[in-house]
Amino acid sequence: MNIQQYMQNIGVEARKASRFMASADTNQKNIALNAIAAAILREKDTLLAANKLDLEAAKANGLEPAMLDRLTITEKSIANMAEGLNQIASLTDPIGEMSNFKYRPSGIQIGQMRVPLGVIGIIYEARPNVTVDAAGLCIKSGNAAILRGGSEAIHCNQALAKLVHEGLAAADLPTTAVQIVETTDRAAVGELITMKQYVDVIVPRGGKGLIERISNDARIPVIKHLDGNCHVYVDDDADFDKALRILENSKTQRLGTCNTTESLLIARSVAASMLPKLAAMLTSHGIEIRGCAETCALVSQATPATEEDYYTEYLAAIISCKVVSGLDEAIAHINEHSSQHTEAIVTENYTKSRRFLREVDSSSVMVNASTRFADGFEYGFGAEIGISTDKLHARGPVGLEGLTSLKYVVLGDGHVRA
Amino acid sequence: MNIQQYMQNIGVEARKASRFMASADTNQKNIALNAIAAAILREKDTLLAANKLDLEAAKANGLEPAMLDRLTITEKSIANMAEGLNQIASLTDPIGEMSNFKYRPSGIQIGQMRVPLGVIGIIYEARPNVTVDAAGLCIKSGNAAILRGGSEAIHCNQALAKLVHEGLAAADLPTTAVQIVETTDRAAVGELITMKQYVDVIVPRGGKGLIERISNDARIPVIKHLDGNCHVYVDDDADFDKALRILENSKTQRLGTCNTTESLLIARSVAASMLPKLAAMLTSHGIEIRGCAETCALVSQATPATEEDYYTEYLAAIISCKVVSGLDEAIAHINEHSSQHTEAIVTENYTKSRRFLREVDSSSVMVNASTRFADGFEYGFGAEIGISTDKLHARGPVGLEGLTSLKYVVLGDGHVRA
Repeated sequence: MNIQQYMQNIGVEARKASRFMASADTNQKNIALNAIAAAILREKDTLLAANKLDLEAAKANGLEPAMLDRLTITEKSIANMAEGLNQIASLTDPIGEMSNFKYRPSGIQIGQMRVPLGVIGIIYEARPNVTVDAAGLCIKSGNAAILRGGSEAIHCNQALAKLVHEGLAAADLPTTAVQIVETTDRAAVGELITMKQYVDVIVPRGGKGLIERISNDARIPVIKHLDGNCHVYVDDDADFDKALRILENSKTQRLGTCNTTESLLIARSVAASMLPKLAAMLTSHGIEIRGCAETCALVSQATPATEEDYYTEYLAAIISCKVVSGLDEAIAHINEHSSQHTEAIVTENYTKSRRFLREVDSSSVMVNASTRFADGFEYGFGAEIGISTDKLHARGPVGLEGLTSLKYVVLGDGHVRA
Repeated sequence: MNIQQYMQNIGVEARKASRFMASADTNQKNIALNAIAAAILREKDTLLAANKLDLEAAKANGLEPAMLDRLTITEKSIANMAEGLNQIASLTDPIGEMSNFKYRPSGIQIGQMRVPLGVIGIIYEARPNVTVDAAGLCIKSGNAAILRGGSEAIHCNQALAKLVHEGLAAADLPTTAVQIVETTDRAAVGELITMKQYVDVIVPRGGKGLIERISNDARIPVIKHLDGNCHVYVDDDADFDKALRILENSKTQRLGTCNTTESLLIARSVAASMLPKLAAMLTSHGIEIRGCAETCALVSQATPATEEDYYTEYLAAIISCKVVSGLDEAIAHINEHSSQHTEAIVTENYTKSRRFLREVDSSSVMVNASTRFADGFEYGFGAEIGISTDKLHARGPVGLEGLTSLKYVVLGDGHVRA
């Protein structure tokens, strides 16, 4: 197979389908989503059988346990896929929404209309649930999708694609609105991320290596985040109980998520009174503490941190810790070391809370709340296609709206420019 | 001089200044803008003398007349520069604006804060007024700017930079918030558009060739438009007087702007009655008409158009024309041939106006109004740094808001995730 030609064909079809999807009405899109959900529940045995083929091949190829885990689907995860689609159907349709219509002195009335981005290319690991989730979000937001999942999930993805197409057809929508790249050839990714004329945005989901490679090579805008090196800063005016609760939740609720806190900063004036107790809590959860000299002096179980530690997203039972002189040093440290994902201050001080919110340059900034809240569902988007730490376009958790754009609408009555 | 080192130094300083500018208060920024305006008026003789040096060198190097024209500054254009800065000072400060704060079932309150993009790299031709305009917009939007104007304007740009720095200093803002690339070495541009760690977005302003080259080579997001191949579609239900007025204004008010109409579509049912009169109006303005076979049959002065014509932004006294069966063909033709800049329908029909607005995939879509309105000032932004025909981030005319982003703000009271 000529990969370039194969991908170009997919691109041409996606572009055509995107025009159709852009003007599909809300009801049609919801019918498709509900029909896909029903088909997934009905064909659960087919899906489990396809997944079994993938799992057997993956085991034979020595795939590591964590990846096998993500590749595996169960009756429960199948039910979750269907439930997710029904939830997306229940969300308000963002497309066609018109806002801010104002008259200008010239007599024209100008406002904006929300429109789809067009064609979204999504590149992800061998996780069948992402196939369904991404398809659902793209359908609801009126986009066409080209999905390239990890090759280890190919059988399950093909089985899912069939059901997605069945649901699209049931709603009189083009089945080419969601296309799955069926070749496992890696050249397909290289083509996908450079065919500007057919693809409007790339969303890579997966490990840092994958995302870094894709955003370096892409010739198309990428919605991405590389790292979640999140901070909690315990201010001089922190309430100790809140600090304890927030740090515990931020660091220990889940170790492997991007909104997990990786670094603790604490004001010098409260370090002696608070840090040993905060450290004891962390240690009770099995968290290793790597700290500055002052931390090590106050916390017997801490080991010295290197400068490298403060830049590190551990995704593990480790936290870095630094005693700072106060708010100024905390903000400067965060803006230097963070990955601009999520940072929280614990304080009762009004002025310092305002300064932290304004001056910390991250996609989510929080006062007296756990960094674990940085999530599309917690923010009320009802769905999430990823989190962006970039500044252009979407920033922070990306839901349906992040897959849309705004165009200007001008209403006149024969008006011309003077 | 080592260009790479020179540009990296500029980048480091710009990044530092951007942190400062992000938290500069509104009053400080306005003081700087007004001070720069005053300095420009005060030093008009210095500026004219610097411009004279540039013009002499440019003439000696055989610069073409249109470029000499744009390079030239006068007492009037100096007054306009100052007036533009004072206008930017009078605009509402977009930075720090908070909106949409809502409580979630978890108890957190979530909203958004508008923040600067950071460091903006602006690459433009030898037009001194762009230096002032770009500096003003970046200062007001809390960004740091790196300006790389055409080398032919180097003396005037250096003189302007001195005045910009004087104004920044008068407001206690870092003079490095606006840096001018003082080398005329083209390698500086290559460095500017690839130093990701220091520059957040590139805005190229100038001819299509420049913009195309920059967006192909940039490793940083680019806010740009390549072409303005704008359409007016005269529908079956068009009011003839409005069609005549809108087409005349759209095509003939100015020939060389990106929002000028380059192609006329007309419904078959009204072609015989309206097209000859529309064509006579165009001819009276010296516009050459290149049309389809039906156009040529109805309009004696028309010559046959090639398929290439329908893709062309003439920026000249030429228009392409095509008779179409109706709305469906008009929309399909536009979505295939346009540059997604601006398109207008002339119609009295409600349903067709709604379909045109929804289905035409351009950054500005209009009903019964001249395409010439697609402009930041006409839209009420008070200023414009360019027009974007892309879909990510800003789309359409880009004012202050296009130089900003939104971050999420979460307010809690010790809340943790369940």
